[in-house]
Amino acid sequence: MPIVIKDACIYKHAPGGALVNANIFIKGNKIHRITDDQDEVKRFIDENPEVEIISGKNRIVLPGFVNAHTHSPMSVFRNYASDRSLHDWLFNMIIPKEQLLTEEDAYWTSLASQAEMIRSGTCAFADMYFHFESLVRAVRESGMRVNLSVMPLANKWVDGKRQTVSNAQEAISLYKKYNDDEMIKLYSELHSIYLYDIDMIHVNVEVAKELNTGIHIHLHETEKEVNDCLKEYNKRPIELLRENGVFTRPVIAAHCVVMNDDDIEILKEENINVCENISSNLKLVSGIPRIPEMLEKGVNVALGTDGCASNNNLNMFEEMHISAIVHKNQMKDPTVMPAHKLIEMATKNGYDAVGFKDRAGDVAEGMLADLMMVDISSLHCTPINEVAACIVYSMQASDVDTVIINGRTVMKNKELVTIDEELVKHKVRTVAKRLGL
Amino acid sequence: MPIVIKDACIYKHAPGGALVNANIFIKGNKIHRITDDQDEVKRFIDENPEVEIISGKNRIVLPGFVNAHTHSPMSVFRNYASDRSLHDWLFNMIIPKEQLLTEEDAYWTSLASQAEMIRSGTCAFADMYFHFESLVRAVRESGMRVNLSVMPLANKWVDGKRQTVSNAQEAISLYKKYNDDEMIKLYSELHSIYLYDIDMIHVNVEVAKELNTGIHIHLHETEKEVNDCLKEYNKRPIELLRENGVFTRPVIAAHCVVMNDDDIEILKEENINVCENISSNLKLVSGIPRIPEMLEKGVNVALGTDGCASNNNLNMFEEMHISAIVHKNQMKDPTVMPAHKLIEMATKNGYDAVGFKDRAGDVAEGMLADLMMVDISSLHCTPINEVAACIVYSMQASDVDTVIINGRTVMKNKELVTIDEELVKHKVRTVAKRLGL
Repeated sequence: MPIVIKDACIYKHAPGGALVNANIFIKGNKIHRITDDQDEVKRFIDENPEVEIISGKNRIVLPGFVNAHTHSPMSVFRNYASDRSLHDWLFNMIIPKEQLLTEEDAYWTSLASQAEMIRSGTCAFADMYFHFESLVRAVRESGMRVNLSVMPLANKWVDGKRQTVSNAQEAISLYKKYNDDEMIKLYSELHSIYLYDIDMIHVNVEVAKELNTGIHIHLHETEKEVNDCLKEYNKRPIELLRENGVFTRPVIAAHCVVMNDDDIEILKEENINVCENISSNLKLVSGIPRIPEMLEKGVNVALGTDGCASNNNLNMFEEMHISAIVHKNQMKDPTVMPAHKLIEMATKNGYDAVGFKDRAGDVAEGMLADLMMVDISSLHCTPINEVAACIVYSMQASDVDTVIINGRTVMKNKELVTIDEELVKHKVRTVAKRLGL
Repeated sequence: MPIVIKDACIYKHAPGGALVNANIFIKGNKIHRITDDQDEVKRFIDENPEVEIISGKNRIVLPGFVNAHTHSPMSVFRNYASDRSLHDWLFNMIIPKEQLLTEEDAYWTSLASQAEMIRSGTCAFADMYFHFESLVRAVRESGMRVNLSVMPLANKWVDGKRQTVSNAQEAISLYKKYNDDEMIKLYSELHSIYLYDIDMIHVNVEVAKELNTGIHIHLHETEKEVNDCLKEYNKRPIELLRENGVFTRPVIAAHCVVMNDDDIEILKEENINVCENISSNLKLVSGIPRIPEMLEKGVNVALGTDGCASNNNLNMFEEMHISAIVHKNQMKDPTVMPAHKLIEMATKNGYDAVGFKDRAGDVAEGMLADLMMVDISSLHCTPINEVAACIVYSMQASDVDTVIINGRTVMKNKELVTIDEELVKHKVRTVAKRLGL
């Protein structure tokens, strides 16, 4: 149904952040019109008797966040096995439990993550996990926009050892089954260089080529990944991937922590979309990615939370805040990573990265209507002073009040519309209990 | 009035964090009794007909946070002049505006900070600012516990230059006037080594000695501070302060970022209470303090937010979270700074630092009743799994539901009891407007 957000205060990307007072008309899945003409508002309401009217009072309308790299069903592993080494955490704790997750579990645990994302202003996300069809089911229910990966490779873990076989035909048929859903952008999953050999990389690239789509990968996350690759191939992962045609496809590269100057040059030359996951990188001691230098070079950098097992929440406000202050300190320059740039990364750059380039990420006529409204009347936002700084440094996820995705209200006045929140929480607790977490 | 928190789930300091199911009786300003005997609960209610009964359902009771270093009236400068160098920010932007703050302004802007602190679970704070009597007035109204500094030195800024004179007699008389308030611990303010010369340090120490109290100082915050001191005195600030008797008094040393091994040794030898302010240090590119090493040596380290002008909020959950993950990465060891340690730093270590040693910071019989209750039913805390990790890595300030300080309920079900929140916000906005922020 059409929506009008009345007397809105719209956030516009600009140094310091700019505010525009206007009314927003949403029709279908798009921002139809932005106007300060009250007569036009009256006409729009008259012409659309079933219009949903939302007051913009004490609210700022922002583009929705894009969580450009997460593993949504991992909500159940939140706060399980914290404060451990990556290897101990992943191989001894997470993977053995992960094998116990059923299709039905993945549906509920993904839905819980989506509910958490909506609550904190996220409208779209890029997911990487197994149980593909459960994730489709969950996304269709929540109403979120997603970049979801088909897996041309099938893994089995037997006694802690992985066995991989090609799964290309299934991936292709899944793609064909769901590719006409306007809310789902389907990429091919290439988990990482350290999980697969060259043959498997080729399977991935071939599938992505055949489907004319992109690839989602973990890239240069740790020193170990880069060093092991150098030992085995005498090349850095990004070089190996280039040589094997991965970058002929659009790519979301999560992490990109351990990168030298040449690596960053390749990111730019190959138009690779980087997704920073600063909370996860710090917590798992992967290091601090050279994001300010990537941005300086013109690389498109988005933000992500990574999964709940390593973060341990899906709060994009925290990612913006932590990224800004960690990089300022890293560069010994408080002027780098200004607040408005973080908001761009969390919104516009995210849409560009996950396959909706230039179609959303700005509150402007013709854009997809993926929006959030934040309450600015809280103590911790008083006074606002500089608006971008207020959003990045002061605001909390709980300030998000209303979320619209693809022209549909999915949270209104802090009430979720599409998800039964109590049921989802109950189901996740039940799964956690069964897994013995 | 007496309080009983029924069917409570109490957080106890322990690796991983421990939960105890029990009922808490509060009488006067103390935790009187913790029991799981329901008959005892009935008797307590019968014997205290005016008892306030608070349900612990879906809540965890935690010790209140201590914000061990802040500048509460600076709430009005929140998000003003972000993303600038420390010098530009402080001398060109903040100080000229700060001079325009009246006594009345400081009262309202401090009260706003206190309201924000209560909302986010902070029961006590150490403040350093001018307009002393306005701060006393604000604290008495909010009901918060405070370590407040009298200033034995008076500063005037004339054309960007500071003029300092001794103000010892006024500091002493202020101390005598307010020292019998059980909620106010009065220290002597020695702003920093870079603002004052040796004579002024001596005035400070003499006042602290005469009053038999402690000293609150900014210490080793930046490279510049340490290098300038080396140039002028051929000693590092901490050595100069030791030589001049500062550490014969209890000390709260904020920041302690730029420290070598010998400096850390002095912290331990002299029992100096360190207050880490990680958000502010990163944002102003002061660097990352060597906190894990200090803790290893047995130094008492508390957490603080610093003022709103540099942070830009007063959210102790963020300080715990950011500190934990930044130090893990800094030490290349995910096992350092485990979550339960951060909770200790934010609570017990804080009370120890600000002059209430062993009197609060644990939910235990005989302790001062400074408590918060957090709602654990949110999506982002589902499932809880490890409780300390949930509190540090997943929880948000908005999960705080009820706050009790010194046996008095100051927030109940998210409603502030002692502060008129709307009035405070209005006043702060008015001040911001008048200052031209």
